[in-house]
Amino acid sequence: MKFSIERTVLVKAVSQAQSVVERRNTIPILANVLIEATPEGVSFRATDLDTEVVDRAAAQVERPGATTVSAVMLNEIARKLPDGALVNITSDDASARLTVQAGRSNFSLATLPREDFPVMATTEYSANFSAKAAQLRRLFDKSKFAISTEETRYYLNGVYMHVATGEDGPVLRCVATDGHRLARIDATLPDGAAEMPGVIVPRKTVAELRKLLDDDDTAIAVSVSETKVRFATPDITLTSKVIDGTFPDYSRVIPAGNTRKLEVDASDFARAVDRVATVSSERSRAVKLALETDKLILSVNAPDAGAADEELIVAYADEPLEIGFNAKYLQEIASQVDRENAVFMFNGSGDAALIREGGDTSAVYVVMPMRV
Amino acid sequence: MKFSIERTVLVKAVSQAQSVVERRNTIPILANVLIEATPEGVSFRATDLDTEVVDRAAAQVERPGATTVSAVMLNEIARKLPDGALVNITSDDASARLTVQAGRSNFSLATLPREDFPVMATTEYSANFSAKAAQLRRLFDKSKFAISTEETRYYLNGVYMHVATGEDGPVLRCVATDGHRLARIDATLPDGAAEMPGVIVPRKTVAELRKLLDDDDTAIAVSVSETKVRFATPDITLTSKVIDGTFPDYSRVIPAGNTRKLEVDASDFARAVDRVATVSSERSRAVKLALETDKLILSVNAPDAGAADEELIVAYADEPLEIGFNAKYLQEIASQVDRENAVFMFNGSGDAALIREGGDTSAVYVVMPMRV
Repeated sequence: MKFSIERTVLVKAVSQAQSVVERRNTIPILANVLIEATPEGVSFRATDLDTEVVDRAAAQVERPGATTVSAVMLNEIARKLPDGALVNITSDDASARLTVQAGRSNFSLATLPREDFPVMATTEYSANFSAKAAQLRRLFDKSKFAISTEETRYYLNGVYMHVATGEDGPVLRCVATDGHRLARIDATLPDGAAEMPGVIVPRKTVAELRKLLDDDDTAIAVSVSETKVRFATPDITLTSKVIDGTFPDYSRVIPAGNTRKLEVDASDFARAVDRVATVSSERSRAVKLALETDKLILSVNAPDAGAADEELIVAYADEPLEIGFNAKYLQEIASQVDRENAVFMFNGSGDAALIREGGDTSAVYVVMPMRV
Repeated sequence: MKFSIERTVLVKAVSQAQSVVERRNTIPILANVLIEATPEGVSFRATDLDTEVVDRAAAQVERPGATTVSAVMLNEIARKLPDGALVNITSDDASARLTVQAGRSNFSLATLPREDFPVMATTEYSANFSAKAAQLRRLFDKSKFAISTEETRYYLNGVYMHVATGEDGPVLRCVATDGHRLARIDATLPDGAAEMPGVIVPRKTVAELRKLLDDDDTAIAVSVSETKVRFATPDITLTSKVIDGTFPDYSRVIPAGNTRKLEVDASDFARAVDRVATVSSERSRAVKLALETDKLILSVNAPDAGAADEELIVAYADEPLEIGFNAKYLQEIASQVDRENAVFMFNGSGDAALIREGGDTSAVYVVMPMRV
């Protein structure tokens, strides 16, 4: 194998690929990236056996071939080479070394045979559709904060992407919950997505996917089967196993009968919660919301450290209400709200609250109360 | 106690004070900041018993007084208050609470009595002098990288500031070493400093001092005794115990007879060392320097991972030489060099190397070789 590649192109391709590589590996080859050079260009493939990413890059290929080399080391070398350098990469099967040469720098890296690299088996996908990067970004960015980190509830360790019935017909929906809060985000159903099975996209895949979604207008090719999901741009293909479990029936936890309505400036609210929570050093900081006509008092009482309260002018026209929540959960939800106002729908102090972004019904959040 | 203070002023004073507070304290009051309000203004004092910082700030003092309150919490509250807010601070001795009020936010914080706060004893200083911030910054910034972290050699856990004889007469000198490398930085001796005893300024004090030295032209009042050192600006006074030990006779480790001279662009050199060191994953990466007439080849050989070399055009006119060093030490020294060229003076492959910044003799570095 022999090819030349621009340093910037190499940095981009390798850094994206190496990010799926786990830092601690018991299987040596999983620390490596598989480099494949064909007359059409070069690809860099990395995997942790659950997630696989393939980055394709333009290169001058003189001699096709393939080998594997430490992903972290290749990434570090690429980064440290001078800007604008042309990098010559050659593998020599006899010595089992990969040489990287640029300017007056020479590197000779240990390789492992390409045959040992676990390439993810191809799958029949039951649905293939195209979605705009901006659309997928919204679906996942607004839901991922609610993903559970509890390993025993593994079926909550991801975002449940599925087809559902929204107010105006079928939608592509992402839901995440950890049992304490929930996010349910809807988007227009893309053509060809109606038949897709619901899949739980693991947390790590959600994070990797984010890197494909920076450019609003990129069309992302999405493929879904019962066991795998694939997201692809022209340069990058991210394939992931989905979580093998059943996502719980979330519709039961979304309160339908809450009638007490609070409307509040979302960023004022988030900042006030953050301020009053300062006096509590506990991990689960409980903040009390006391509502009267057009007035909200947020307060925290931490017997050892002190107390704090703050008053906000709001729109509220119902019976007075006192209700407590985890401060961090409130802040995380409030920071999702893109519009000026967050709308809270309450029932009693022991009942879950529902939060919307102004009049928009395509993003709905639920948070369980805490005793205060 | 009762005073009003601008939020920005409060943030600056408290954040500087709280940075000396240790995060884990077995003595509760050491987590607190002592607030003292007098008709002249307000001061915030924090200590870890070895280092004390006092920040003075302008405030509208309505009722003088003093109390202590959690430094971290006060700092966090100040940061989170809205920009431009006027903060009203009141202490109520009866309830042992400090109230902080700004806009519609109210905080009530637990206090501990001011009498329990350990204020550092005042000392007779044997030398008092004034130095420009820029001068002190150079002395400490260029030497601190060589401070030892080995606790058993506690007398190396700081920068040795003392009066010495330089090439052109007496100088104010800072030296730090960990036994593997050494930095010796000289500055013009300020008026009144000649009588100062040599003191070992602890690592933490060096870090805190750095925050006083941002503005080049600030005059820093320096006071030195056998046991303490004090640095003061009009707003901030930093007092520290010095390390109770004898700094070793460093002059013996500075090679005087090295005759082989290498001149190299300092940043090219640092970058090349960084690049070739990539292939070694060991903590102490050894890099080999092979010198021939006007040519330097840097190389690293890590049997498992690979090898790397890079050639640099340099000025060298002596006998060929091969010598090895810890890559990190070389990089750290090269990155101190402000001038274009670093000048290395070598003897044999088993001997320490001396590094200067171009023709400047006021900064000298020494690094021990490694077998490669």
